[in-house]
Amino acid sequence: MSAEANNTENTGAWADISPDAARRLVTAAVEAFAERGYHATTTRDIAGRAGMSPAALYIHYKTKEELLYQISGVGHRLALAIVREADDAGGTPAERLAAVVRSFVRWHAEHHTTARVVQYELAALSEEHYTVIAARRREIDAAVRAIIEDGVRSGAFDVPDVSGTTLAVLSLCIDVARWYAPDGRRTPDEIGDLYAGLVLRMVGAAGS
Amino acid sequence: MSAEANNTENTGAWADISPDAARRLVTAAVEAFAERGYHATTTRDIAGRAGMSPAALYIHYKTKEELLYQISGVGHRLALAIVREADDAGGTPAERLAAVVRSFVRWHAEHHTTARVVQYELAALSEEHYTVIAARRREIDAAVRAIIEDGVRSGAFDVPDVSGTTLAVLSLCIDVARWYAPDGRRTPDEIGDLYAGLVLRMVGAAGS
Repeated sequence: MSAEANNTENTGAWADISPDAARRLVTAAVEAFAERGYHATTTRDIAGRAGMSPAALYIHYKTKEELLYQISGVGHRLALAIVREADDAGGTPAERLAAVVRSFVRWHAEHHTTARVVQYELAALSEEHYTVIAARRREIDAAVRAIIEDGVRSGAFDVPDVSGTTLAVLSLCIDVARWYAPDGRRTPDEIGDLYAGLVLRMVGAAGS
Repeated sequence: MSAEANNTENTGAWADISPDAARRLVTAAVEAFAERGYHATTTRDIAGRAGMSPAALYIHYKTKEELLYQISGVGHRLALAIVREADDAGGTPAERLAAVVRSFVRWHAEHHTTARVVQYELAALSEEHYTVIAARRREIDAAVRAIIEDGVRSGAFDVPDVSGTTLAVLSLCIDVARWYAPDGRRTPDEIGDLYAGLVLRMVGAAGS
């Protein structure tokens, strides 16, 4: 098991998946998809990594796509929870936006393997499942946009294009998962601080 | 052939690959890797898409990895050329940085399929080939960092963390390839204008 899969499990990303066999299959699938891509991975590969037979996998997941959907669902639910939690902590729009960026960046750095699978394999979801995930993505976007709109309304931010700026802020945070390396120069917290400062400049926060 | 592969060929991305058969194999490989991932694609798939036999492919590329390396090499050479060309047009640091961001964003939007393959399949390169590509990536990074340093030196920019900000600027531009859709709300030029403005704010350009 990779350090991240282990860490992900320990920090509870997959903690609400039960029984234990289903949880092991999900972490095995994340690793396999990340290493070889969704289409190059077979359910047999995933079962093998989880120390199970293909028949045992089938009890929990009828198809490889169901595993991807579960991974994507958990990933997006956690991302939305992180954005909402940071936002609910309260404070000025600048404090809320900085808190959301810090948490979102840290999540994409610490769970970069999961985040890559979630972001790069969206096209492999069934149409029905993609519709559910797309709705969750719109909720994340709306939560960030609402903070930026609050800042504009109160005069704390100066943003000519709110929807474009929301897109850019989320894109900047998500792309951390692509380039982040655990042995790199910056810790997840340091990247979070750097990015919170850059985002406050993007929204024209006074004093940033 | 996808609209982009066609467009890529027409706009000369692959124009310096000869003979024609090698060029057809590269565009076929980009499409196949983008659709199914590098590891799920066989040289037989690529040859078939190019209307050639596996034996004919082998005349031009000994392995699938050689094809990926050629795609990555061309992609990075073009990205570096774009950054240098925009920079060479001259002007103030703010004008040069805005020109680089506009060109880089437009390239990642228009060639999003190629850019995704180049960015997401780096780990599939051989160690030797990865070393060559990594050197080119450092050149791109250095070209952008040099503009930001010029701006800081002249007092036009205010940047507490030059290397971190350079990383963020490039990351923001590259991630356009992930989310851009040709039927989306914004044209590549509109995204380029939006992002040039946001990047000037990130570097604290006076009046931005």
